[in-house]
Amino acid sequence: MKKIIIQSQLGSYPIHIGYKTVLKHVSSVLTSLRLGPHFVIITSPTLSHLYGYKLRRHFSSSVKVDQILISDQEKDKNMDTVQKIISRLIKLKAHRKTCLVAFGGGVIGDITGFVASIYMRGVPFIAFPTTLLSQVDSSIGGKCGVNTQEGKNLVGSFYPPRAVFSECSFLKTLPQKHYRSGLAEVIKYAVIDNQKLWTILHAHPSQILKRIPSVLEKVITSCVLTKKKFIEEDEKDFSKRQILNFGHTIGHALEAHAAYRGITHGEAIAQGMYTATDLSLQRKLCRPKTAGGIRSLLKKYGFQKQPLPPNISSTIARDKKRENKAISWILIEELGKPQRVSIPQEVF
Amino acid sequence: MKKIIIQSQLGSYPIHIGYKTVLKHVSSVLTSLRLGPHFVIITSPTLSHLYGYKLRRHFSSSVKVDQILISDQEKDKNMDTVQKIISRLIKLKAHRKTCLVAFGGGVIGDITGFVASIYMRGVPFIAFPTTLLSQVDSSIGGKCGVNTQEGKNLVGSFYPPRAVFSECSFLKTLPQKHYRSGLAEVIKYAVIDNQKLWTILHAHPSQILKRIPSVLEKVITSCVLTKKKFIEEDEKDFSKRQILNFGHTIGHALEAHAAYRGITHGEAIAQGMYTATDLSLQRKLCRPKTAGGIRSLLKKYGFQKQPLPPNISSTIARDKKRENKAISWILIEELGKPQRVSIPQEVF
Repeated sequence: MKKIIIQSQLGSYPIHIGYKTVLKHVSSVLTSLRLGPHFVIITSPTLSHLYGYKLRRHFSSSVKVDQILISDQEKDKNMDTVQKIISRLIKLKAHRKTCLVAFGGGVIGDITGFVASIYMRGVPFIAFPTTLLSQVDSSIGGKCGVNTQEGKNLVGSFYPPRAVFSECSFLKTLPQKHYRSGLAEVIKYAVIDNQKLWTILHAHPSQILKRIPSVLEKVITSCVLTKKKFIEEDEKDFSKRQILNFGHTIGHALEAHAAYRGITHGEAIAQGMYTATDLSLQRKLCRPKTAGGIRSLLKKYGFQKQPLPPNISSTIARDKKRENKAISWILIEELGKPQRVSIPQEVF
Repeated sequence: MKKIIIQSQLGSYPIHIGYKTVLKHVSSVLTSLRLGPHFVIITSPTLSHLYGYKLRRHFSSSVKVDQILISDQEKDKNMDTVQKIISRLIKLKAHRKTCLVAFGGGVIGDITGFVASIYMRGVPFIAFPTTLLSQVDSSIGGKCGVNTQEGKNLVGSFYPPRAVFSECSFLKTLPQKHYRSGLAEVIKYAVIDNQKLWTILHAHPSQILKRIPSVLEKVITSCVLTKKKFIEEDEKDFSKRQILNFGHTIGHALEAHAAYRGITHGEAIAQGMYTATDLSLQRKLCRPKTAGGIRSLLKKYGFQKQPLPPNISSTIARDKKRENKAISWILIEELGKPQRVSIPQEVF
């Protein structure tokens, strides 16, 4: 098991990563962090059915563990679900020392973190990310939030977990569509900063697509280390952290445009990476060879370029990445050399 | 004009207090804090009508000032109003550097601070408290939040403003009922910590009830200094800050019980102070003379003791001041000597 500490001004926290080695440490980690004795697991019916018993038996028998079941669909990551969870917490008599447990993918992690940040002005939470996307990205960095009709994550907080437990064996049962969604974020890290990951991704697509344990653990750890570097320098996302938004300007707009239905986050940001690569080339920022390498990696993992919806520009304009009338883009100079570029809204 | 700095781990901020002297500093303070150039004032139709023009002309002509009108009723301090404000902010193209402006009493301050804490994961906000209650209490300390059906402020954040402007002349038009609501909090400070304030309150009730400017400024400043002492030692409300909850255990329950209609916060906590005083006496914690002094001060400012609703205990049990099965009370040993006491829920 690997343990990586994320330094945060709001409270540092450990990420535990391993294959069939993480859960046995849960009880001792929670004791050392003085969390409990009341926990409320927030998860989906499917995950509860598959792993609920397995997870619960790793909590000490002296603590009380409740459970709230919610939808894990992006379309339900909204204030209605937040309010339902809060009502249930009140009924469960959750108090300021109750610790919430996010058990699921990005949707469940985002919504649980957000509820933890506002229930009784903040209660602790821990996360067990169960998807590749959440293990390499959304469970790390303290960003949480929900969507509104107008756009993705327009409501949220910076609120770090007290600990993250990334058990890679949970990925075994993840549908391929969602596994590939995480791979898009993995590709993003490789492009913006991680040469080693780039090499692994190009060299071993079949092992990675087959989820071979040893490769999985290596890939996830490598992604977490890259993300750590960006967020520790700019936790509140005013400068360097924005690099992590490579592919996200178009990505978020595509998700909002589809009303968070039918398209995964990874599929959306893969299209965003295609667009950002095209823009980098158009603006003569990168060489054709660099753009070709990015496109070929995306294709290798099954992401084909699609035409953008004609009215996507008005959705982009509502995104958080707007500042006055310009849109902030992450473009690519060469591999490992991303650049923040402000482009007037009218470009699209 | 007085300037008091509140030290906060989440960002320190100044409180400006004065009578017809505060507004003229607004523009220069905002410039020095680098806030703007987009501001959104959140206020009530009444306040906008009375003071909207006056307030706006103190913003520099080079900034854009929008306005969102909301209800200032406690019954509307809920997630529905939060969602309406967020939708309006999106329509106004508010971005991460937009600064929200709370212009109103406790309800408007609480809800604006909460929206600021979650809109795009946090935007800056400043506050112009216009009621005695908000000038002496709710605008200071970074607590914000909204009510749910189940209880008061069960949802919220710790999120400090960037600056507070307490212009005492706004109190001229405050209805007497609401002015007295603030006086209950003033009495609270006198009882728990402020001997000088206790003496002034006992000696000059008619001047205070008539809102004589020089006395007002002195009373407000004295309250802010007391609150500063408590919150700087325990910003997140785990120990000493809880002393400020004198009168609030019953107070919050009474407000929830009345569904936040008909009873002001001050009326509710005045009843709470009566109950806490009775409990202190019953438990032989304080002398009859101390209890008598508190009761006589409450009466002097028009707060008569009322019988409690018979089923108030179940409402108390849902309050944030619960931890497992005990309720945290603030009782009084003597003036300036409050004590936190944990009492089993069954007492009521």
